[in-house]
Amino acid sequence: MDLSLDQQLRALVRDVPDFPKPGILFRDLSPLMRDPRAWRLVVEGLAAKVESHRPELIVGIEARGFLVGNALAFAMDRGFVPVRKPGKLPGPVEAIDYSLEYGSDRLEIQEDALAGAPRVLIIDDLLATGGTAAACASLVEKAGGVVCGYGFVAELTELSGRNRLQKNLPIEALISY
Amino acid sequence: MDLSLDQQLRALVRDVPDFPKPGILFRDLSPLMRDPRAWRLVVEGLAAKVESHRPELIVGIEARGFLVGNALAFAMDRGFVPVRKPGKLPGPVEAIDYSLEYGSDRLEIQEDALAGAPRVLIIDDLLATGGTAAACASLVEKAGGVVCGYGFVAELTELSGRNRLQKNLPIEALISY
Repeated sequence: MDLSLDQQLRALVRDVPDFPKPGILFRDLSPLMRDPRAWRLVVEGLAAKVESHRPELIVGIEARGFLVGNALAFAMDRGFVPVRKPGKLPGPVEAIDYSLEYGSDRLEIQEDALAGAPRVLIIDDLLATGGTAAACASLVEKAGGVVCGYGFVAELTELSGRNRLQKNLPIEALISY
Repeated sequence: MDLSLDQQLRALVRDVPDFPKPGILFRDLSPLMRDPRAWRLVVEGLAAKVESHRPELIVGIEARGFLVGNALAFAMDRGFVPVRKPGKLPGPVEAIDYSLEYGSDRLEIQEDALAGAPRVLIIDDLLATGGTAAACASLVEKAGGVVCGYGFVAELTELSGRNRLQKNLPIEALISY
């Protein structure tokens, strides 16, 4: 019997207990990327899921969102725009501060990266609490873009990250935990 | 008259003076990635240059090397392995410390990522002083891989980074400054 796409991919995700801190079960996607056949299934699978949302640009969140987002942009023949941690992008930037479980963080995008109000798909490797993706969406809007959806390789459903994202926008994930 | 590939790509690189510090002219490749036609020329141009070195795996250096390396791996149908800053990779890692102009830094790779002694191509966006790429090559060897070459989108020739890399290995760059 053929395994479903979800099952095939899930078999290559490595579970690492207590990373980055005690009590967290880290879903390590590295083995998926190391296997070119599996990674093609990921990138093309995600492309198929998001195509109907008609993104003009793919925005990837540093750093693991760069891995998924740039390959996806290449596969879909769309432009790619990076959203980075503070101080990494040259030239004038738009920034957004957001709170984490402990403390806060900031994301930046180049000020002119979304000129012309393009439809933007936000990409990260994992949807967990949704805080970073939600902040990224606010940043995209602040910079003049129109968020048309979100794409993730995997979603940790028990953390209910979906509830922190805009309710009327599509959220696609290839693997659900 | 058609512009050469080098000229076409160079026209999309943005020069940002005094970033990240005074006196540095930063070559910002973001506009290349935002233009899907240009980015395809970059990724496929680099793939054409490195194909004859017969890489089995592409190693990309965090964070801008992720953008180039993962799209290249996807285009070439090769696996991708990330080399990251300290504490980012889960599970047992190999690490290497190296010196920068001021201070030092550390790179890590997952211990089992290069099992089977694969031929590895090291990818980053820019070859500047070559310190990071040289450290990455030592790390790849420490982890059991065989470095078969290096690939960069752009090379800052006046910094002579080539001289810090292993002399007998091919070094490919699409744009030379």
